[in-house]
Amino acid sequence: MGKEIVLTGITTSGTPHLGNYVGAIRPAIEASNRADTEAFFFLADYHALIKCQDAERVQQSRLEIAATWLACGLDTDKATFYRQSDIPEISELNWLLTCVTAKGLMNRAHAYKAGVDENVASEQDPDFGITMGLFCYPVLMAADILAFNAHKVPVGRDQIQHIEMARDIAGRFNHIYGSEFFVMPEAVVGDSTAILQGLDGRKMSKSYNNTIPLFDTEKKLKKGINKIKTNLLEPGEPKDPNDSTVFEVYQAFATPEQTEEMRQKFADGIAWGEAKKELFELVNGQLGDAREKYLELMANPAQIEEVLQAGAVKARARARDHIKQLREAVGLVNFV
Amino acid sequence: MGKEIVLTGITTSGTPHLGNYVGAIRPAIEASNRADTEAFFFLADYHALIKCQDAERVQQSRLEIAATWLACGLDTDKATFYRQSDIPEISELNWLLTCVTAKGLMNRAHAYKAGVDENVASEQDPDFGITMGLFCYPVLMAADILAFNAHKVPVGRDQIQHIEMARDIAGRFNHIYGSEFFVMPEAVVGDSTAILQGLDGRKMSKSYNNTIPLFDTEKKLKKGINKIKTNLLEPGEPKDPNDSTVFEVYQAFATPEQTEEMRQKFADGIAWGEAKKELFELVNGQLGDAREKYLELMANPAQIEEVLQAGAVKARARARDHIKQLREAVGLVNFV
Repeated sequence: MGKEIVLTGITTSGTPHLGNYVGAIRPAIEASNRADTEAFFFLADYHALIKCQDAERVQQSRLEIAATWLACGLDTDKATFYRQSDIPEISELNWLLTCVTAKGLMNRAHAYKAGVDENVASEQDPDFGITMGLFCYPVLMAADILAFNAHKVPVGRDQIQHIEMARDIAGRFNHIYGSEFFVMPEAVVGDSTAILQGLDGRKMSKSYNNTIPLFDTEKKLKKGINKIKTNLLEPGEPKDPNDSTVFEVYQAFATPEQTEEMRQKFADGIAWGEAKKELFELVNGQLGDAREKYLELMANPAQIEEVLQAGAVKARARARDHIKQLREAVGLVNFV
Repeated sequence: MGKEIVLTGITTSGTPHLGNYVGAIRPAIEASNRADTEAFFFLADYHALIKCQDAERVQQSRLEIAATWLACGLDTDKATFYRQSDIPEISELNWLLTCVTAKGLMNRAHAYKAGVDENVASEQDPDFGITMGLFCYPVLMAADILAFNAHKVPVGRDQIQHIEMARDIAGRFNHIYGSEFFVMPEAVVGDSTAILQGLDGRKMSKSYNNTIPLFDTEKKLKKGINKIKTNLLEPGEPKDPNDSTVFEVYQAFATPEQTEEMRQKFADGIAWGEAKKELFELVNGQLGDAREKYLELMANPAQIEEVLQAGAVKARARARDHIKQLREAVGLVNFV
């Protein structure tokens, strides 16, 4: 062994968009090919239930996200790729950890506190509309991580606290049951350049409804790109690349040489229509093969299922011995 | 089918005592033989972790309690007898239910509120020392019940609220996912005569440290009975049976005829020593065979394990289709 375990969860409540690709999927797949790491990727479908009570949406999102990662080149011979809900060891560990987690720790979770603040501001009961799913979410996330004793967990800034909580919970368990059952996971926060702007210039995000889907048809990709907000400068007028979503997205897909060329074109006053056309060609060229693969996979769910079943077998084999040891620690072993 | 499902959980953190036998084990085993019910009994070892972080204690208690129920005549051909922690479907359902449970509902749980009140009274943080295990316990208990769609749950008065919560959670799930997935469980509260007094005259309970173990040696049973608190009335002086733990325990094991005879002896001024001797003989006579069976089982954990494994297979077979239907409802089904 000795390899560093890197674990990434993807909540299955949306459709992957260009921002996900640039900010998460592409770097994660690149990182998973490093020789010194062992990558775990999972579809966080239990987490999805907290936000999304639309079964069709959850189911469709699981399929789309699985197809996306596979189409983008995730090598499942190297990485372990599975659905959270296929691993009973995770829900089991969730309860073991629940029993050692201080309620006070959960009271301090940002997501929960934001919900309370909102209720208080609108003069509701502080816990109005808040489910136990939201409240207990950091414990389940700790189980996701600690089931495999992951060393590194790439997350956005808003998730750093959850990794700290996982460390806290792991430490409590180690302390109570008197051994180093868990390694302390570390958050890895991606650099901010990896956040892509959306159609309206804000961060591309499902919640802002400003996304360009990753693997829609060519036609829709073109349409999406054409909708990116620009200013009113005419063709021939020099344009500021640092204040342009079109340039920003271009840069995210271009080589440094291509980026410099486009910067020059901006200075030379390229028409917005022309810039968008070049952006479409760049992105479409890079995603074309993957899109084909994606559509192939989406048309053949059995193939995706097979990959995920194999992933579950691999993941469970890794979790099983660890959980067995934890069961022993708390007093839940078979009598012979 | 059509039979009424009756489900009983036994928390595995103590050693069964005479009070458990009279108040729970004996009536439950009797009830499990009724033709119109289907009985589920389980060792609530996940619940035990909330109170008990001593692995040896949990493990030993699981063994003792399993041996006790079997020794007392539980017919595992009729009843389904299993360990909670052997049924992954329960922890899985626990999460599905967590996602639909209002946090406000848990805020109102008596056990949690008692903890908060105690903290407030001693000027601590309200959640001081309270774990998520205690806070989430009613959700897990709902999963225990709803995994098998139990109709009736025999409980003590202090547990009635938890059955109401299980109904509330079941109703929310049914409502959100638009079908009658769960039947509404009902609490069955045993009559108060079934509560046995302990050595000091208070309710016999581990927490009062006033118990007489059920299956200790004959010698220790005698010693336990001799420790029952009595008053200072001399031999020959009439004694009030209604104010005597000795009489109360005697009655719990005696036929109506034997009870009347003893009542007469009290009126005639039986010596406490003599009354205790008769009590010992009665109890020992009734428990002798079961004790032998108990010791045999305790010396052969493999036999207990085999029974529980078979019980787990039976229980999982019952839970599996139900959970599959629930997974479908929330959007967690396989792609083919």
